Amino acid sequence: MDGVIKIRSFIDRLIDDVKRKESNICVGLDPHPELLPEFLLKEAGETSSKAEAMGRVITRFNREIIDQIADIAAAVKPQLAFYELSGVPGMTALEETVKYAKEKGLIVILDGKKNDIGSTARAYAGAYLEGKSFTGAVKVDALTINPYLGYDGIEPFIEKNDRGAFALVKTSNNSGGDLQDLELADGGKLYQKVGETVSEWGKEVKGEYGYSNLGAVVGATYPEDMGLLRKKMPDTYFLIPGYGAQGGKAEDIISGFNQDGLGALINSSRSIIFAYRKQPGSEKEFGRAARNAALKMRDQINEVIQRGI
Amino acid sequence: MDGVIKIRSFIDRLIDDVKRKESNICVGLDPHPELLPEFLLKEAGETSSKAEAMGRVITRFNREIIDQIADIAAAVKPQLAFYELSGVPGMTALEETVKYAKEKGLIVILDGKKNDIGSTARAYAGAYLEGKSFTGAVKVDALTINPYLGYDGIEPFIEKNDRGAFALVKTSNNSGGDLQDLELADGGKLYQKVGETVSEWGKEVKGEYGYSNLGAVVGATYPEDMGLLRKKMPDTYFLIPGYGAQGGKAEDIISGFNQDGLGALINSSRSIIFAYRKQPGSEKEFGRAARNAALKMRDQINEVIQRGI
Repeated sequence: MDGVIKIRSFIDRLIDDVKRKESNICVGLDPHPELLPEFLLKEAGETSSKAEAMGRVITRFNREIIDQIADIAAAVKPQLAFYELSGVPGMTALEETVKYAKEKGLIVILDGKKNDIGSTARAYAGAYLEGKSFTGAVKVDALTINPYLGYDGIEPFIEKNDRGAFALVKTSNNSGGDLQDLELADGGKLYQKVGETVSEWGKEVKGEYGYSNLGAVVGATYPEDMGLLRKKMPDTYFLIPGYGAQGGKAEDIISGFNQDGLGALINSSRSIIFAYRKQPGSEKEFGRAARNAALKMRDQINEVIQRGI
Repeated sequence: MDGVIKIRSFIDRLIDDVKRKESNICVGLDPHPELLPEFLLKEAGETSSKAEAMGRVITRFNREIIDQIADIAAAVKPQLAFYELSGVPGMTALEETVKYAKEKGLIVILDGKKNDIGSTARAYAGAYLEGKSFTGAVKVDALTINPYLGYDGIEPFIEKNDRGAFALVKTSNNSGGDLQDLELADGGKLYQKVGETVSEWGKEVKGEYGYSNLGAVVGATYPEDMGLLRKKMPDTYFLIPGYGAQGGKAEDIISGFNQDGLGALINSSRSIIFAYRKQPGSEKEFGRAARNAALKMRDQINEVIQRGI
């Protein structure tokens, strides 16, 4: 109508895929160098420098994982640290990975926990959400961000409707509470106030399903805190790390969902992509092992959702 | 003695240089693409793709800046966002920049505001503080980090004595107070508690001058808050952004120094490296303009220190 092209928002695209695939899982693409299959390292290592070999191994590893989980997961989440760790070849591997995941129809959330003053945050948004970091027409769909710098460091990540961000609220690590659990003068803990603030910031950028393009990172390892946040921020989608290797179970993340069966995207990295390590001698089947682990995770989560939210 | 090789700690190396150069300034290497001299872009742009051309322009620009300020500044601080913005060629430019700055004897603080759970924080530390991101024997001396995830996300950055980190405490941007100024139940504001906590975390990693390898980022734009933090964390070195383009003046940062004339490293980025933009027609002299701006800043700061802390 009137020549207006309607752009589907990031969060609506994510939810479309969650519904279509009947999956609330996200696979973390965290290529820890010491956990990658040795045969890949050997094959790549014979002909080139270490970082270049590692870059090629990461690309090959991720392509196989993506092939195996593209129909099972709603999204993938590359962890920037493990690409930066291989320098320039690592960044090339990131680009290839993002490109391939997009070709396979996956939502890509880049986990960089970016944070800075407005003008610098804008550079990060340009780099990844607009794809200036990449040579082709590749971009990621969303970034994780850290909200400590306040709104002007957040705005550049959510000003384009078709891209999104997930702001850290409650993290999954043991010492997450060092600062996040500080008691505030107005009552409640810091992470709760951060959650409310993120929810408030996100109100202007809601999609058609009623969820905001500004989501929140809420760790699976603190189920009670998650339930409290769910009530305080009903329109905020949660990206939930810490499932699997970090200790979070299906029962722990149920409090992250709303009554509509939406609101939580559960991430697992090591437990999926390095599942082959639990079956000695199966490293050549690492893709199949990842597929089985992803299927199991998807089904376990769907089952607890079915049992009742 | 006894075959023990004594490694000089990061903070001692920084202070050695501050004393030797009689300079408390750090030059931010933030190559905003739209602020770089046009003649460099034109010269580079004729023969290659945009990102590759930009990578070469950044390297050439930074080398000239480094040549001009190496004897004036104690440190340089590349802002990671502006290298990531040019993707793989940008990361190559970062590596060349770090390498060249180290050759010229400068302390290099990489401004990436890294933050993550322990295992991922370790990957970031490996990438930059151990130099795994770089092809040669290049490493940066310190990283900026965001403390929201608590101690296990900080430890990997300070466990090697010869490298350091600066944790965000009070940032220089307008909306820094959104979360940082929250009042706590125990009294005081969040940023104060973050400061005390950073100071506590840093106690185990002090150098010979009595300062910690874990420093703090404290914006120049809130001088009163800075004075308060100086008292609460006497052994923590402050990295102070926001001088110049962001509005901070020499009088504003005096409260960041201790009585020993140490404790504050003042950063300016745009006001130094893009000083040529204030003199129309002088873009070919951008290096000289940066040198003059750096000299002026160094002397202004030394003067206020002389006048009395």
